[in-house]
Amino acid sequence: MSKKIAVIMGSDSDLPVLEPAFDLFREFGVEFEAHIFSAHRTPRQAAAFAKTARDSGFGVIICAAGMAAHLAGAIAAQTTLPVIGIPIKSTLDGLDALLSTVMMPPGVPVATVGINGAKNAAILAIQILAVSDTDLGYYLDSYKDKMESDVLIKDQNLQEVL
Amino acid sequence: MSKKIAVIMGSDSDLPVLEPAFDLFREFGVEFEAHIFSAHRTPRQAAAFAKTARDSGFGVIICAAGMAAHLAGAIAAQTTLPVIGIPIKSTLDGLDALLSTVMMPPGVPVATVGINGAKNAAILAIQILAVSDTDLGYYLDSYKDKMESDVLIKDQNLQEVL
Amino acid sequence: MSKKIAVIMGSDSDLPVLEPAFDLFREFGVEFEAHIFSAHRTPRQAAAFAKTARDSGFGVIICAAGMAAHLAGAIAAQTTLPVIGIPIKSTLDGLDALLSTVMMPPGVPVATVGINGAKNAAILAIQILAVSDTDLGYYLDSYKDKMESDVLIKDQNLQEVL
Amino acid sequence: MSKKIAVIMGSDSDLPVLEPAFDLFREFGVEFEAHIFSAHRTPRQAAAFAKTARDSGFGVIICAAGMAAHLAGAIAAQTTLPVIGIPIKSTLDGLDALLSTVMMPPGVPVATVGINGAKNAAILAIQILAVSDTDLGYYLDSYKDKMESDVLIKDQNLQEVL
Amino acid sequence: MSKKIAVIMGSDSDLPVLEPAFDLFREFGVEFEAHIFSAHRTPRQAAAFAKTARDSGFGVIICAAGMAAHLAGAIAAQTTLPVIGIPIKSTLDGLDALLSTVMMPPGVPVATVGINGAKNAAILAIQILAVSDTDLGYYLDSYKDKMESDVLIKDQNLQEVL
Amino acid sequence: MSKKIAVIMGSDSDLPVLEPAFDLFREFGVEFEAHIFSAHRTPRQAAAFAKTARDSGFGVIICAAGMAAHLAGAIAAQTTLPVIGIPIKSTLDGLDALLSTVMMPPGVPVATVGINGAKNAAILAIQILAVSDTDLGYYLDSYKDKMESDVLIKDQNLQEVL
Amino acid sequence: MSKKIAVIMGSDSDLPVLEPAFDLFREFGVEFEAHIFSAHRTPRQAAAFAKTARDSGFGVIICAAGMAAHLAGAIAAQTTLPVIGIPIKSTLDGLDALLSTVMMPPGVPVATVGINGAKNAAILAIQILAVSDTDLGYYLDSYKDKMESDVLIKDQNLQEVL
Amino acid sequence: MSKKIAVIMGSDSDLPVLEPAFDLFREFGVEFEAHIFSAHRTPRQAAAFAKTARDSGFGVIICAAGMAAHLAGAIAAQTTLPVIGIPIKSTLDGLDALLSTVMMPPGVPVATVGINGAKNAAILAIQILAVSDTDLGYYLDSYKDKMESDVLIKDQNLQEVL
Repeated sequence: MSKKIAVIMGSDSDLPVLEPAFDLFREFGVEFEAHIFSAHRTPRQAAAFAKTARDSGFGVIICAAGMAAHLAGAIAAQTTLPVIGIPIKSTLDGLDALLSTVMMPPGVPVATVGINGAKNAAILAIQILAVSDTDLGYYLDSYKDKMESDVLIKDQNLQEVL
Repeated sequence: MSKKIAVIMGSDSDLPVLEPAFDLFREFGVEFEAHIFSAHRTPRQAAAFAKTARDSGFGVIICAAGMAAHLAGAIAAQTTLPVIGIPIKSTLDGLDALLSTVMMPPGVPVATVGINGAKNAAILAIQILAVSDTDLGYYLDSYKDKMESDVLIKDQNLQEVL
Repeated sequence: MSKKIAVIMGSDSDLPVLEPAFDLFREFGVEFEAHIFSAHRTPRQAAAFAKTARDSGFGVIICAAGMAAHLAGAIAAQTTLPVIGIPIKSTLDGLDALLSTVMMPPGVPVATVGINGAKNAAILAIQILAVSDTDLGYYLDSYKDKMESDVLIKDQNLQEVL
Repeated sequence: MSKKIAVIMGSDSDLPVLEPAFDLFREFGVEFEAHIFSAHRTPRQAAAFAKTARDSGFGVIICAAGMAAHLAGAIAAQTTLPVIGIPIKSTLDGLDALLSTVMMPPGVPVATVGINGAKNAAILAIQILAVSDTDLGYYLDSYKDKMESDVLIKDQNLQEVL
Repeated sequence: MSKKIAVIMGSDSDLPVLEPAFDLFREFGVEFEAHIFSAHRTPRQAAAFAKTARDSGFGVIICAAGMAAHLAGAIAAQTTLPVIGIPIKSTLDGLDALLSTVMMPPGVPVATVGINGAKNAAILAIQILAVSDTDLGYYLDSYKDKMESDVLIKDQNLQEVL
Repeated sequence: MSKKIAVIMGSDSDLPVLEPAFDLFREFGVEFEAHIFSAHRTPRQAAAFAKTARDSGFGVIICAAGMAAHLAGAIAAQTTLPVIGIPIKSTLDGLDALLSTVMMPPGVPVATVGINGAKNAAILAIQILAVSDTDLGYYLDSYKDKMESDVLIKDQNLQEVL
Repeated sequence: MSKKIAVIMGSDSDLPVLEPAFDLFREFGVEFEAHIFSAHRTPRQAAAFAKTARDSGFGVIICAAGMAAHLAGAIAAQTTLPVIGIPIKSTLDGLDALLSTVMMPPGVPVATVGINGAKNAAILAIQILAVSDTDLGYYLDSYKDKMESDVLIKDQNLQEVL
Repeated sequence: MSKKIAVIMGSDSDLPVLEPAFDLFREFGVEFEAHIFSAHRTPRQAAAFAKTARDSGFGVIICAAGMAAHLAGAIAAQTTLPVIGIPIKSTLDGLDALLSTVMMPPGVPVATVGINGAKNAAILAIQILAVSDTDLGYYLDSYKDKMESDVLIKDQNLQEVL
C-alpha cells in the first residue's frame, strides 16, 4: 500500500491556498493528513511530527509558510523523508518566503515549488509516491493527458471566437 | 532493485557545479547517468530522453541550467517522474535561473533546490528513491548523523580556539 | 504577398492582454492566426507548430506566457523564424516572466518586449514584416505620425486646462 | 540583395561585448556597419542616423548600452525599422540596463535580448532579414543543426569521462 | 526676476501625479509651464523644447515618465539646465522608471527624486532657483518651519489620544 | 554582575565575519561564549542551548547564518531572550539571508542588523545589557565619543590633503 | 522599577500600524510614551528626545518610518540605548524602508524587525527590558506558551474540518 | 561671484569615488570645500554645517554615503539649499544606498544621481550654479560640445578598425 502524504501549514490563514492540494489528493485517492504547526510558535510539535513521520507511514511532507518561511527547513532538519516547500505570498510578493524556503544550506534540501503553488506541490508529492507505485504512475499519465486535451479544446474554441 | 537517477545539464560548463552530486551518488552506491541536453539547442533529444526515462529504469531526473533556465520545465513537460531543478548561477546572481526554474505553472511541478545546489539535489533525489527503499533510508539517516557530528566537532574545536 | 503572424499564448487567461495586438493586426490588414499552446502541457503541439511555421507562411511568431515563461523559448528552439516574447504579469509583478523570456542562452534569441506589452509585440512583428514590404513600412510611418500628433493635441489641450 | 544591419553602441567600452555579433555577421556574409553614438552625448547624430537608416539600406538596427540604457529607445523613436536592444552589464548586474531597454511604452517597441546578449542580437537580426531571404533562412537552419550536433558531441564526450 | 520652471510629462495619464507640484508653484508664486512631450512619440518636439529652454527663460526642467523612463535623460541630453526626473509608478512598482531615470551615464546628470515624488521635485526646483533668489530662500525657510510645526502639532494631538 | 552574550554561527566559515564582534566584547570586558550550531544539521543542540540560555546566565543571543538563514529564528522560537540576527553574505549578495532573518512572523522577533554586520550586532548586544548596567552605558558613551572624534580627525586630515 | 519604552513614528499615518504594539504594552503593563517626530521635518526635536531618553527613564526606543526610513538611524546616532526599527510599507512593498533601516554602517546599530512588524518590535522591546526584570521574563514565557497553545487548538480544529 | 559647492562624504573610504568631482570643479574653476561628516557618527557637526551652509556662501551641497545612506537626507533636513545625493556602492550593489538616498518623504527632496555617480553630481552642482551664472553656463555648453566630439572621434576611429 502507498505511503501517506503530510501537509503542514504554518498558520490557518494558509488553508485556502492549500485547498487545491487536498482536492487533488482526494481525486487521486491518496491518503493525507494536514496539520497546523509553526516552526516558531510550536517548534517542539513540528519537530516531533517530523521525527516520527516515516514510521507513521508518511512518504512525503509538504510544508507551507510565508514571510521568513522556516517551516519546510525546520521539518527537513528532522527527517530524511523528501520535504516539499510551498512559499506563501504575504509580504514582498512572496519573494521572502521563496528565498527562505529554497536557499537551503548543503545537506538539508527542500523541494521548493512556486509561490502559492499548492497544486504543484500536491502533484510533486504524488509523483514521488508514484516512483514505486505503478498505479499512481498511470493516474499521473492520465492527468497529464487530460491537461493536454484541456488546452487543445481551448485552442479549438479560440479558433471559433477569432 | 532501486531506480536510477538521471542528471541532465544544459551545458558542459555546468559540469564542475554538478561534481558534488556525482560524488554523493557514488558514496551512496546509487546508479546514475549524466547527459548534456539543451532545452533550446537539442529540444528533441531532451524530450525523447524524458519520455522514455521511466521505462529506462530512472526514478528521478535532475536538471541543471542557468539564465532563462527552461531545462527542468521542458523535461517535466514530458514525464511524470519527479524532476529536480538546479538553478545555475551565471547572470543576475542566478536569480533569473531560480525564477525560471521554480515558478512553474499549475500542473507541471519542478522540485527546485537552491542556486548551484547540486549536493542538495542529489540528496533530494536519494530521499525520493528512499521512500520505497529501506536501505537507502538507513544510509540517509547515517549521513544526517554524520553531518550532525561534524558540526559538533567543529563546535568543540572552536572552544579551544577562543 | 506578406507573411502571416502567429500568436501563441500559454493559457486562455492571457487572451484579454493580447486583444490590443489582434486589433492592431486588423487595423494594419495583416493576416494572423492565434493559438493556445502550452510549453508544459502541450509541448508536442507547440513544437509541431513551430517546426512547420515557416512553411505554413508565417513570418513571425509572438508568444505570450507568465510565471516561468518558457513558451517563447520553446518555440524559438524549434524554428529559425524571429520569435517575439511577451512576459505576462501574474506573480512577482511579472519579473519572473520577464527574466524567463529574455535571458535566453546564446544561440536561441527571443525578441522580448515589456511586461504585458502586447501592442508593442504587434508593432514589432509588423516592423519585421515591413523590412521587405514597402507598403507596411508606409503604414508604420503613418501610425508613428498619428502617435506624434495625438501627443501634440494632448499638449495643446493641457495648455487650456492649466 | 539583403538589407544591411546597423550596430550602434553607446560607448567604445561596449566594443568587446559586441565582437561575437560582428563575427557572426562575417560568418553569415551579412553586411553590417557599426557606430558609436550616445543617446545622451550625441543625440543629434543618433537621431539623424535612425531617421535615414531605412533609406540607407539598413533592415535592422542593433543598439547596445548600459545603465539607464536609452539608446535603443531613442533610435526606435526615430525609425520604424525593427530595433534590437542589448542591455550591457555595468552596474546593478545589468538589471538597470535591462529594464531601461525592455519596458518601452506602447507604440515604440524594442526587441530586447538578454544582458550582454550580443550573439543572440546578431542571430535575431539575421532571422529578421531571413524572413524575406530564403538563403539566409537555410544558413540559419544549418547553424541551428550545428548547435545541436555540438551539444550531442559534448554529451558523447561526457559519457567517456564519467 | 526669477526664472520659470518647465514641467514635461510623457503622457497625460501622469497629470494627477503632478498636481501637487503645480499647487506648490502657485503657493510660492513661481512661474511655470507644463507640457506633454514623449521621448519616444514626440522626440523632435521634446528636443526642440529642451534646446531653447534656457533662452526661453526657464531655469529648471522637471520631467515625469514611467516604465523605461527616458524623458528626463532625453531632455538632459539637449540642455545644460538642471533637469529633475520624477519616476512614475506604472509597472514593477516604479523600479523600472527609477533605474531608467537615475542611472545616467557620466556627463549627463538627472536630479532624480523618489517614485511619484512630484512635490519633492517642485521643492527641489524652487530650491535651485532660490540659490540666486533671496526671497525664494525666505519662503522655503518658512515652508520648512511650517512643516516642522505641523509635525509638532500632530505630536501634541497624539498625546491627547493615547 | 552583567549577563553573558552568546554567539551562535551556523557554520565555521562564518567565523572570520564574527571576529570584530569578539574583539569588541573583549574591549568592553563583556563575557561571551561562541558556538557552532546549525538550525538544520544540529537542530536538537541549537534548541537545547536556546532553552537553557537564560538560566545559564546569558542575556542576549547573537545568531549568524547565510542563505535561507533560519538560525536566529530557530533560536528565537525556543527562548524569550532577545535574539540578534546577522545575515551572512554567501549567495544573492546576502539578500536571501537578510529576508530569511528579518521577516519573522508575529510573535517571535529577531533583532536584525545589516548583512555581515557583526560589529553592530555586538554593539547592540552590549546596548541591551547596558539597559540595566550603568557602567556599560558609560563605556558605550565613550565608544560613541571615540567614533565621533575619529571622524573629525579624518575630516581635519582631509583639509590638508585637498 | 522597569524602564519605559518610547515609540517614535515619522508620520501620523503610521499610527494604525503601531496600534498592536501599544496594545501589547498595555497587556504586559509596560509603561510607554509615543511621539510623532520626523528625521527630516523635525530633526532637532528627534535628536533632543534621543539625547535625553536614557535620563528620562527610557530603556528602549522603537522607531517606525517608511520610504528612505532614516528615523531609527537618526535616533540611534544620538543615544546608546537600543533602538528598534520598524520599516513601514508605503512604496516598493517596503523594501526601501527595510534597507534604509537595517543596513546601518558599523558603529550605530538598529535592531530591525520585519516590514510593518509593530507587534514584534513591541515583544523585542519587552524582551530587552526583561533581561534584567524577572517578572517580565515570566510574562513573556506565558505569552509564548499561549501562542503555542493557540496554534495547537487551531490544529485540533483543522482535524475536525478535514 | 558664484557660490561655493560643498562635498560631504560619510567616510574617508568614499574619497576615491569622489575624486572625479573634485577634478571637474578645478576644471570649471568652481570653488569647493570637502568634509568627512557622518550622519550617524557626527550628527551634530553634519547638522551644524548644513544649517550655516547658505550663510557661509555655499550654493549646493553634495553628499556621498553608502549602505543605509542617510547623509544626504540628514543634511537636507537642516537646509533649504539644493542637496545632491551620491549613493555609494558597498553592499547589495549599491541598491540599498540608492533607495535610502532617493526615496525621501514629501517636503525634503534629495537630488539623487546614479550609484557612484560623482562626476554627474559635480556637473549637476555646476548646472545649478549656472542657472544664475552666465559664464558657467557657457563653460557647460563647451563641456557638452567636447563630450559630443569625443564620441564622434571614437566613432571615426571605430570605422578604421572594423
